[in-house]
Amino acid sequence: MKLVLIRHGESEWNKLNLFTGWTDVELSEKGRQEATEAGEVLKAQSYDFDICYTSLLKRAINTLNIVLERMDREWLPVVKDWKLNERHYGALQGLNKRETAEKYGEEQVLVWRRSYNVLPPPLEESDPRNPRKAEMYRDVDHGALPLTESLKTTVDRVIPWFNTVAVPQIRAGKRVLIAAHGNSLRALVMYLETFSPEEIMQVNIPTGIPLVYELDDGLAVLSKNYIGDEKAVSARTNAVANQGKKG
Amino acid sequence: MKLVLIRHGESEWNKLNLFTGWTDVELSEKGRQEATEAGEVLKAQSYDFDICYTSLLKRAINTLNIVLERMDREWLPVVKDWKLNERHYGALQGLNKRETAEKYGEEQVLVWRRSYNVLPPPLEESDPRNPRKAEMYRDVDHGALPLTESLKTTVDRVIPWFNTVAVPQIRAGKRVLIAAHGNSLRALVMYLETFSPEEIMQVNIPTGIPLVYELDDGLAVLSKNYIGDEKAVSARTNAVANQGKKG
Repeated sequence: MKLVLIRHGESEWNKLNLFTGWTDVELSEKGRQEATEAGEVLKAQSYDFDICYTSLLKRAINTLNIVLERMDREWLPVVKDWKLNERHYGALQGLNKRETAEKYGEEQVLVWRRSYNVLPPPLEESDPRNPRKAEMYRDVDHGALPLTESLKTTVDRVIPWFNTVAVPQIRAGKRVLIAAHGNSLRALVMYLETFSPEEIMQVNIPTGIPLVYELDDGLAVLSKNYIGDEKAVSARTNAVANQGKKG
Repeated sequence: MKLVLIRHGESEWNKLNLFTGWTDVELSEKGRQEATEAGEVLKAQSYDFDICYTSLLKRAINTLNIVLERMDREWLPVVKDWKLNERHYGALQGLNKRETAEKYGEEQVLVWRRSYNVLPPPLEESDPRNPRKAEMYRDVDHGALPLTESLKTTVDRVIPWFNTVAVPQIRAGKRVLIAAHGNSLRALVMYLETFSPEEIMQVNIPTGIPLVYELDDGLAVLSKNYIGDEKAVSARTNAVANQGKKG
């Protein structure tokens, strides 16, 4: 059984080095190019899918749309779910990562970004960015919508979604593609590879590179492969790891 | 209760004046522009939807994607169904409409295009374009897939789909958007407006102009409105009506 994960390409806010979280920003031109290349490598290697999942955020949806276009697979079913959204970064959303590092110290920023269970300062209930006020989440139980998230609370929403929605498809032999975000995918990687909180903090998933898991009947990982040019994989992993560092 | 229909914008084959049917061709640049304008007018008039339906053909899917992008509604659920596909044009697919008119006579072409129940010559079973051979329809009951269709046989697949899938949503108060094709939309218009076969033959739905039906509890039409610039509506209706004429 195979499962393919893909992290959306560079967004307009990644470019500006801002904490994005649930802010619904567009892909940058480079991000669209990354998605194009991902679709081309999947097609060249004859990958195919039965069902695709993505978040409610346009940078993931558009990455998936571009991938499907390049694969000539626009017709595949796509299910969008907020449970695959990026980790909510609370009041840090919209702040420049370097400025935040200067203000709070690089270490505090790294704690927020890389610790497993520390919540960034939450949005105020009255904040216009409160997801309970957004049309996008009008059909979601408002009690479930966060004002901030740690990686742990992200895992706590992603994994039940995975077990309830994606696993039955995988077990039925369906080929599943998930287009999502750095931290919602980290939650999946942690679960599949049974990483500890310390280990998952060290994992940086490159943007726009399909990550292919081969799984046995018990969902144990038989193999793990990034498909794409080796130099691109390593360059994009480093680019992601360096976000939030000063200078 | 409201229902909005939209016919995809110009495709690469519309431009070349070829019978398209189930051939999965791209939107032309003009077609993408038509979809953009449709999304903008829907947004400007504060339209919103709860669920969107489209066919398996990329010219309809991409029209819907562009409309949702312009409406800032990428996150809306989208369901793709072959039942909304264009009428299958059998062995005429890929033929230039003017050449077909010269070969078979303009009247025969009009009979095939505008008669209610005359089937164009079917594809051979062995034709590589037989939908039973296409990956796109691998999950569809092959017995249901046509080798040619009249408007009548198109109606016979679209209306049961509409009553089973879309009507329960409409009755539940959901705002439904359907992005589809000249003839699958004609089937819906015929059904909603209780047109006779003769009447529906005269109806030409312009490309890329949202068509808004207001319906009462019994699904009777209270009002019907194309939204968009009046000149554009009339120009695109005439453009569609003139396809297949010589000269």
